[in-house]
Amino acid sequence: MSFNTFGHLFRVTTFGESHGAAIGCIVDGCPPRIPLTEADIQPYLDKRRPGQSRFTTQRQEPDQVRILSGVFMDEVTGGQVTTGTPIGLVIENVDQRSKDYSEIRDKYRPGHADYTYDVKYGLRDYRGGGRQSARETAMRVAAGAIARKIVPGMTVRGALVQMGPEKIDRARWDWNEVERNPFFCPDAQKAAFYEGYLDAIRKRGSSVGAIIEVIAEGVPAGLGAPVYGKLDGDLAAALMGINAVKGVEIGAGMGAAALTGEENSDEIRMGNDGKPIFLSNHAGGILGGISTGQPIVVRFAVKPTSSILIPRRTIDRYGNETEISARGRHDPCVGIRAVPIGEAMVAWVIVDHYLRQRGQVGESPAWPFTRSGG
Amino acid sequence: MSFNTFGHLFRVTTFGESHGAAIGCIVDGCPPRIPLTEADIQPYLDKRRPGQSRFTTQRQEPDQVRILSGVFMDEVTGGQVTTGTPIGLVIENVDQRSKDYSEIRDKYRPGHADYTYDVKYGLRDYRGGGRQSARETAMRVAAGAIARKIVPGMTVRGALVQMGPEKIDRARWDWNEVERNPFFCPDAQKAAFYEGYLDAIRKRGSSVGAIIEVIAEGVPAGLGAPVYGKLDGDLAAALMGINAVKGVEIGAGMGAAALTGEENSDEIRMGNDGKPIFLSNHAGGILGGISTGQPIVVRFAVKPTSSILIPRRTIDRYGNETEISARGRHDPCVGIRAVPIGEAMVAWVIVDHYLRQRGQVGESPAWPFTRSGG
Amino acid sequence: MSFNTFGHLFRVTTFGESHGAAIGCIVDGCPPRIPLTEADIQPYLDKRRPGQSRFTTQRQEPDQVRILSGVFMDEVTGGQVTTGTPIGLVIENVDQRSKDYSEIRDKYRPGHADYTYDVKYGLRDYRGGGRQSARETAMRVAAGAIARKIVPGMTVRGALVQMGPEKIDRARWDWNEVERNPFFCPDAQKAAFYEGYLDAIRKRGSSVGAIIEVIAEGVPAGLGAPVYGKLDGDLAAALMGINAVKGVEIGAGMGAAALTGEENSDEIRMGNDGKPIFLSNHAGGILGGISTGQPIVVRFAVKPTSSILIPRRTIDRYGNETEISARGRHDPCVGIRAVPIGEAMVAWVIVDHYLRQRGQVGESPAWPFTRSGG
Amino acid sequence: MSFNTFGHLFRVTTFGESHGAAIGCIVDGCPPRIPLTEADIQPYLDKRRPGQSRFTTQRQEPDQVRILSGVFMDEVTGGQVTTGTPIGLVIENVDQRSKDYSEIRDKYRPGHADYTYDVKYGLRDYRGGGRQSARETAMRVAAGAIARKIVPGMTVRGALVQMGPEKIDRARWDWNEVERNPFFCPDAQKAAFYEGYLDAIRKRGSSVGAIIEVIAEGVPAGLGAPVYGKLDGDLAAALMGINAVKGVEIGAGMGAAALTGEENSDEIRMGNDGKPIFLSNHAGGILGGISTGQPIVVRFAVKPTSSILIPRRTIDRYGNETEISARGRHDPCVGIRAVPIGEAMVAWVIVDHYLRQRGQVGESPAWPFTRSGG
Repeated sequence: MSFNTFGHLFRVTTFGESHGAAIGCIVDGCPPRIPLTEADIQPYLDKRRPGQSRFTTQRQEPDQVRILSGVFMDEVTGGQVTTGTPIGLVIENVDQRSKDYSEIRDKYRPGHADYTYDVKYGLRDYRGGGRQSARETAMRVAAGAIARKIVPGMTVRGALVQMGPEKIDRARWDWNEVERNPFFCPDAQKAAFYEGYLDAIRKRGSSVGAIIEVIAEGVPAGLGAPVYGKLDGDLAAALMGINAVKGVEIGAGMGAAALTGEENSDEIRMGNDGKPIFLSNHAGGILGGISTGQPIVVRFAVKPTSSILIPRRTIDRYGNETEISARGRHDPCVGIRAVPIGEAMVAWVIVDHYLRQRGQVGESPAWPFTRSGG
Repeated sequence: MSFNTFGHLFRVTTFGESHGAAIGCIVDGCPPRIPLTEADIQPYLDKRRPGQSRFTTQRQEPDQVRILSGVFMDEVTGGQVTTGTPIGLVIENVDQRSKDYSEIRDKYRPGHADYTYDVKYGLRDYRGGGRQSARETAMRVAAGAIARKIVPGMTVRGALVQMGPEKIDRARWDWNEVERNPFFCPDAQKAAFYEGYLDAIRKRGSSVGAIIEVIAEGVPAGLGAPVYGKLDGDLAAALMGINAVKGVEIGAGMGAAALTGEENSDEIRMGNDGKPIFLSNHAGGILGGISTGQPIVVRFAVKPTSSILIPRRTIDRYGNETEISARGRHDPCVGIRAVPIGEAMVAWVIVDHYLRQRGQVGESPAWPFTRSGG
Repeated sequence: MSFNTFGHLFRVTTFGESHGAAIGCIVDGCPPRIPLTEADIQPYLDKRRPGQSRFTTQRQEPDQVRILSGVFMDEVTGGQVTTGTPIGLVIENVDQRSKDYSEIRDKYRPGHADYTYDVKYGLRDYRGGGRQSARETAMRVAAGAIARKIVPGMTVRGALVQMGPEKIDRARWDWNEVERNPFFCPDAQKAAFYEGYLDAIRKRGSSVGAIIEVIAEGVPAGLGAPVYGKLDGDLAAALMGINAVKGVEIGAGMGAAALTGEENSDEIRMGNDGKPIFLSNHAGGILGGISTGQPIVVRFAVKPTSSILIPRRTIDRYGNETEISARGRHDPCVGIRAVPIGEAMVAWVIVDHYLRQRGQVGESPAWPFTRSGG
Repeated sequence: MSFNTFGHLFRVTTFGESHGAAIGCIVDGCPPRIPLTEADIQPYLDKRRPGQSRFTTQRQEPDQVRILSGVFMDEVTGGQVTTGTPIGLVIENVDQRSKDYSEIRDKYRPGHADYTYDVKYGLRDYRGGGRQSARETAMRVAAGAIARKIVPGMTVRGALVQMGPEKIDRARWDWNEVERNPFFCPDAQKAAFYEGYLDAIRKRGSSVGAIIEVIAEGVPAGLGAPVYGKLDGDLAAALMGINAVKGVEIGAGMGAAALTGEENSDEIRMGNDGKPIFLSNHAGGILGGISTGQPIVVRFAVKPTSSILIPRRTIDRYGNETEISARGRHDPCVGIRAVPIGEAMVAWVIVDHYLRQRGQVGESPAWPFTRSGG
């Protein structure tokens, strides 16, 4: 975590403002000979892209990604692969309509970073939120598409598990449902409910928050670098750093506080494959900052959209008290689009640790040990 | 966050196992001419130190810190100050009784990192938990004592706000109470309740989790480096990286999901001091990853102590199924001692960003702006 | 120094291959409110650009840089300034003629990184040298143009001081001459000699090396972070990392070995401006890794161009022995174009340390001290 | 390179002043299961230790290193091995005689960092040079002893190849001689000459510089991370960062400038072992920042000792002009002791890149390739 770069061996650096010329990123440290074309990235961008239902903002962008470097034709397969050198990605901003920004130029939108950017830097690109815009997350998703291809057998999937105070019924969890509704919701019945629920919120010019859960399966045991490079620490950084996120949980999360030691201890048995089986997963797949081989389970809370039609009291950059409200169509629940972003960030972190573990330890030790030799 | 170093300009690197020769750290990047002696550090170590009540482990360590470098006599004041060079700190481990570790040498304690260290590195120092031991956090607290001295006017205080499912009554919050009970609890009435509550848990050989809240006041607006060095992202990393932490919240935290946009938007007025006043603080003092000047409010959940007297099913490092239980006195709620640790980590992160902001921007812009010039 | 990112607070990350779609970089950590347009960058790119005389390669590229992010209109001046957010720069590659690369696809050019890229990554983009091409240095120069604008009063200038075994006469040093000949040579008489000298080398299909000297003036005293972030250590990394550089010197350089202590000690007197004056500058402006306030003087040696018309014995990637020679026009002295690149790298390093010093120490101490207080 | 930490995966952080309580370091990222005891480290410290001949300073320190963490008994071999957690090393300073420092407290020694530390930090530990003392290099050597054990088959050896203007005769190079004379000189005849030569310099209170060459053999091809983490760039940083070093060369070094392309191009043939053989090594084992598999050859120049008996003009910290000279016994050629330090730094850098390469690429590609598949 530093400035606009994330990661140690799998390193992503992004740039770009909402209404500047383009947004882009550099993915550095990607292993060579990973098959990669724009077609591997585009579907995830399309999933994140706004304007696909009445529940997300009206911005209409094709979000067409270009790979500028770091790939080449593989001599043997004839397909395009990574070369190990930095991968430059860029998306031109096409929706730069000359909108009237005079209001947000001077007024600070409550819940946005308008004031903090101003007080930090002494100025800000106010058009569409500038650097603080969720538009930046497109590059997270793009880099995430690359990250997904590196750890053999790993899958990372996310879902919306709560909207406002309304939680899904986990007994009805069906991953196939996630693709079938505009909420990335695994509970079809709840998704149907959300339609009306969110419409009502939208219509009264308000918004709600959401909780997203991301699960990574097929993550090898042993990833994570205690004590300040723990897998959960890095996941927390990655997820809390997504726009509008206010809480991050691993496994039992905040609820772990209310458990007893015997409830929380994930008892262990031997699996048929010669690996441990944990009888529960309150740990969320991480113990002591290191992956256990169980699914990694994280959740994060996205606050309600700050730009709402209901007027709010605020001040302007010259110290005058005033009020402000969003105009036109607004996004009643930004949390929805956070699903592919959360998936991407989880993939980034795990890949980084996968490479770091390979760097420090090389081939993982053969477990279980034998008494005669490790 | 990387390996055993944390921070960019205020950089702390720690070493040490529970039952090795010593634990220690190097604090690099500390500004020069900060008054510093061991007496500035020791009180915080004493606060964290176990064995001070029947509610914490029996380990008896003086935890006497030595400053090995990085300080010198100030010519003018005659007092000892930092020199700007790395500060080496060390605490000798004195409680290295030759205990019988034969059981935990081979068996994996559920909820501990025994298995993950083994599968990651191929071996582990099993004595007292080795590197995964909470003993490492002593150095966090020591470095935190230094961090507290750098940002003018900043105070960082923590408190236990929930034990098991039992929350404090925030209406009774009194910072003075925190020092008066063994739980760092700001609610005297609840603290009295916790005595009996935790005793019962301890007696039946069980444990419970806790939630800790840390509040930093006097933090200048403008700290935080979007988009991958956000103040909240770094706080999340720092807190999730503490042993046994499973969830981190900023401001409204996970509860933000259930709020509407108008509830969550912290409306803004002008204060008498020419700075903004936020009418609420759901943001927890951070917007867009940058401090607002309001108090920074974070919470984190500590899972119940994993070492309990109640037997749990597990396996050993040779792949055999077995069971295990802790023996002797155990720590029924490790969350209690997390209070000074959480304070320390919050101080680390804020100081790092304070220096980073000074580096990138220099003197902060004069706010509010005038129309004739920023 | 790490992968494709350089710097701690002033951080540059580059991407791009010689014959890919584009090259680019992200300049992160730039202070806000620095006036910046493409016109500030382009002249330095033009200076580095090949094809401007018969002494550099024939590649014809406009090298037109685009700023994609990180700048905005300053409300007061109306001019474009940096915002403190990452600055994305890109140059499209236009000279991607479908050349015949069949020979260098398989054969390793001696002195080039063909073999090492292959053995490292298992493949390489062989077109025009791919990532190992000097084309990458265009982004160094572009980022350097930004770096030049940050430290008040700093100037960074470079010159060619030796070509092959032929050294300039330092008594004839005239900075104005540097712009007047195609060699960036400060000695007009020697420059005239180089014309014929280099033409002869070029005509016989050979090449020669060169030594470049870069001098930074107006660098504040106190920059540099001992002991592993020393100013000279970082300069050495930055310069040795330029393509084809094989040696780096600070001040007296390798020649310091032959000096006695009394010759090498730069004696000190007080200047009229209340600052020290060093009576000589064998130190090259750096003592203990920290700038003295004297000019920073560095030199680096660039090896002769490896691609020459004279056939050389080599092997191919399949392990067959063969020979290779360059075809068409070649660059008889790549060292010439290293002048603006060296300037850029020196500027990067100094700016990074300028920001780091401001971060750690804040306002520099008032020197000289008074006995009553520092 | 940053502050007091060096390296990315093999990370060393040091602390300590010449006359503080102790010096120490943390070696983080070391692979697990590497046999390591204090006996592996001590011989290298002994080699660096001053006071062993009349040609080095009189300081008498046992330099007894203690390993404080990061090692444990290997269950199978019964020997002590690394655990993968940070290795804390410490050496207590025992030679802290209460010397009279009143002169160097105020006066700036020319050629030393007295002024620069003062102007940077506003104060300095002047006793024995404080942090700028060569004493810090003991920890470089200690960490280097660990680094030497990690890359299978690698050896790193150094030698003094020039003292003052007096170069060795490379035809007489004998590694065995290096251990037989107090100069680490591989040319016995020249070593005999140096005895009288250096004695004369010492007796007249002067000093001379030296050039050290370090050669690393058995380094796998493919190490180095272009373009800002090149192997030569990192070596240059590591070596230029050693106290008193003013120049660094790889292979042909500064002399490369005087060569023609055909002289400098290391032609390539196939070796009997199925690997390339370079017919010369002007590249010093590095092409494009990546190791070729040939020996890595670096040289660095150490300036003459700055503390000499001959009086030099200087100023004090209050801005007064004065003069200064060293008293008692001085060190006529600090370059001698730089041999084990240079070896250590070369080992650090190579190990770091060895782990980085393993992290990014995993198992290296099988070279030479076959036409049917890489």
